[in-house]
Amino acid sequence: MKSTSRDIRLRNCFAVLRHLIADAPTSRQILARETDLSVATVSNLVTDLIELGVVVEVGREDSGGGRPRALLAPHAGGGVMIGVDVAETYVQLEAYDLALTVVDRAEERMEASETSPDQVIGHIAAAMDQVRGRLGDRAILGVGVSLPGQVDVTWGVSGFAPNWDWHDVPFRRLLTERLRLDVPVYLDNPLKTITVGELWFGDGRGVDRLAVLILGTGVGAGLAFGGQLYRGATNSAGEWGHTTIDPAGPQCRCGATGCIEAYVGAPAILRQWDEFGGRAAGSQTEAMAALAAAWEAGEPAAVRTVETVAESLAAGAANLLNLVNPDLVVLDGWVTAALGDALVPEFERRLAAHALEAPLKAARLKRNTQERNMVALGAAALALEGHLNRLNTVGSRSRR
Amino acid sequence: MKSTSRDIRLRNCFAVLRHLIADAPTSRQILARETDLSVATVSNLVTDLIELGVVVEVGREDSGGGRPRALLAPHAGGGVMIGVDVAETYVQLEAYDLALTVVDRAEERMEASETSPDQVIGHIAAAMDQVRGRLGDRAILGVGVSLPGQVDVTWGVSGFAPNWDWHDVPFRRLLTERLRLDVPVYLDNPLKTITVGELWFGDGRGVDRLAVLILGTGVGAGLAFGGQLYRGATNSAGEWGHTTIDPAGPQCRCGATGCIEAYVGAPAILRQWDEFGGRAAGSQTEAMAALAAAWEAGEPAAVRTVETVAESLAAGAANLLNLVNPDLVVLDGWVTAALGDALVPEFERRLAAHALEAPLKAARLKRNTQERNMVALGAAALALEGHLNRLNTVGSRSRR
Ligand SMILES: [Zn+2]
Ligand SMILES: [Zn+2]
Repeated sequence: MKSTSRDIRLRNCFAVLRHLIADAPTSRQILARETDLSVATVSNLVTDLIELGVVVEVGREDSGGGRPRALLAPHAGGGVMIGVDVAETYVQLEAYDLALTVVDRAEERMEASETSPDQVIGHIAAAMDQVRGRLGDRAILGVGVSLPGQVDVTWGVSGFAPNWDWHDVPFRRLLTERLRLDVPVYLDNPLKTITVGELWFGDGRGVDRLAVLILGTGVGAGLAFGGQLYRGATNSAGEWGHTTIDPAGPQCRCGATGCIEAYVGAPAILRQWDEFGGRAAGSQTEAMAALAAAWEAGEPAAVRTVETVAESLAAGAANLLNLVNPDLVVLDGWVTAALGDALVPEFERRLAAHALEAPLKAARLKRNTQERNMVALGAAALALEGHLNRLNTVGSRSRR
Repeated sequence: MKSTSRDIRLRNCFAVLRHLIADAPTSRQILARETDLSVATVSNLVTDLIELGVVVEVGREDSGGGRPRALLAPHAGGGVMIGVDVAETYVQLEAYDLALTVVDRAEERMEASETSPDQVIGHIAAAMDQVRGRLGDRAILGVGVSLPGQVDVTWGVSGFAPNWDWHDVPFRRLLTERLRLDVPVYLDNPLKTITVGELWFGDGRGVDRLAVLILGTGVGAGLAFGGQLYRGATNSAGEWGHTTIDPAGPQCRCGATGCIEAYVGAPAILRQWDEFGGRAAGSQTEAMAALAAAWEAGEPAAVRTVETVAESLAAGAANLLNLVNPDLVVLDGWVTAALGDALVPEFERRLAAHALEAPLKAARLKRNTQERNMVALGAAALALEGHLNRLNTVGSRSRR
């Protein structure tokens, strides 16, 4: 519970750099106005960010009579962060510059039979080799990896990955050894990395109380307060997918019944479509695309499925709104991308029947419409946050 | 989202003073160890707290060879805070010294017919007159008032008080005028004041992620992160009582169905006892005491009621655990006091069937067993927090 000037400094640094990435080129004066910090505070932070190689001066602008102001930008030619999205069927690895632009990527397909840590790490290593070859001697500042399941971020351990039946796998150590990495590796799960991605490069930027609802094969939420990811006591915060909306409801894979995930997770959506007489065939993503197309064509089973799922989603989201009272709710995840045109308007319409008036009015609703891989972006942003933490150990501490 | 050194300073000040109140007499060195702050930081804060009249040196202790250390204590002879608990049937007003010890109190009964702001304020004024007379010229540092319903804390307005059908009553202005107060008045609802009370004088002291479940006529939760009350975007956070655990469930007074409050609020508990064949007679509190006695005597309807209510409570609490992942859950409110011996063990037993393993293991469970009025205490603590805010405007800013 200790609060230090280092925490404050880091939080302000995140805010300044997020605005800088969004609005570059920009000036210390504009950054001060946008972050609500003093010009002196921003100037100190910017000096340190320049010293750290994260920010550069790119020119000067006329300030209307006064002294021309220096223009700042992220140091796009500086180091890169690696973000890795490890899913059941693929590994996507992306390299980002300090403006969080993708500078390179590699993808590996994984077979369902490849479930050992060695096999998964093998695919990451193969993707990394490709990208490292092309990056040449450009410095890697850090590596962020998103792994499904429960992750112990302090120890870099995969506590439990249900798809692969992993228990307490020392993933960070294994990965660091295999890749012969001499930079920090940050591990977390997709709920967390997507939320960090939203803070750095999505609608969550500058939002004080953020909730991200992530709809995919699994379902969960990411919470962030004051521009920082909220992890809870044991990094389990956001298990919204396993909150109950009806104890008499269907069985959930977590062992309980009537969890939100048992209604709005991809398998549950496709099961409902099937029960209403639709035809969910092919892979999960193919079937979800077919459902979206059937809804578009007005197929009654598809329309009914979307309505039913929207109703469950509204009940679950209202619970979160009433308890957390966020400023912004972002819908994200591959199911949102695939079925959002149908689902999101139905969901919004039904929310008022479940949420209290005050939190409903307070919460803006957004759907992530970025084409980017927010899991990999957020993993890379975790590495960037780790790198920025060095602000507190290098350079100009005397100025503070 | 701006984070300033003032925020940090205030948060650290709260931590230091909370330990000081709990452990007095104590030294700067022990406070530093307990708060995990540096001795220099603690010393600066203590100097300012002394200057503000909140803390005094009360002696010296031998430090085992070294220089004797000054012993510190809250300035119990200094100013007082007033905490007011406004409920449907009574007004309880308590005066607290800076050690948060009650130094005086007054109580007024209210008739069900007394529903106008004027009548309620009249009772507060009558209680205040009694206490002010006895306090003599002892300085009042601030007044905190807990009002049922929705409160706009910034403007001091009761946005909505359902019992009295109040809408947008400028309560703080009316109270300040009527009482001719020249000290700050802080307004909030019982969910918030009880939680602040737990932070200052309960099990929540020093806890990073705290959830307080408040069981009474209404039901709700208080959340606190980093030692500070979490209000949400519009001070509506914690409306846990109106999260749904079964959409097909009973009607709730909020308009929705199947809210937790519709299962575990006092009227719902007594209704269930009735339905199971019990005899809920007399006032709500009398009937609840009768239910507790019947359970103690093994009356089957009472046993079944407690089991059913515990099951609903466990489902609702598990949702909060899974989403928020707190370090500590405190059960509070008058129903917890009246029925806790029966309800709490049944509740704890059932929680594992609903909560995920990680958040369940992380959360300690406590029942508030203090005999104190936590609503009034928390309201007074809000006034104390307001007074401490002056740290940032008076005295020794140059030392920071
Ligand atoms: Zn579940
Ligand atoms: Zn309700």
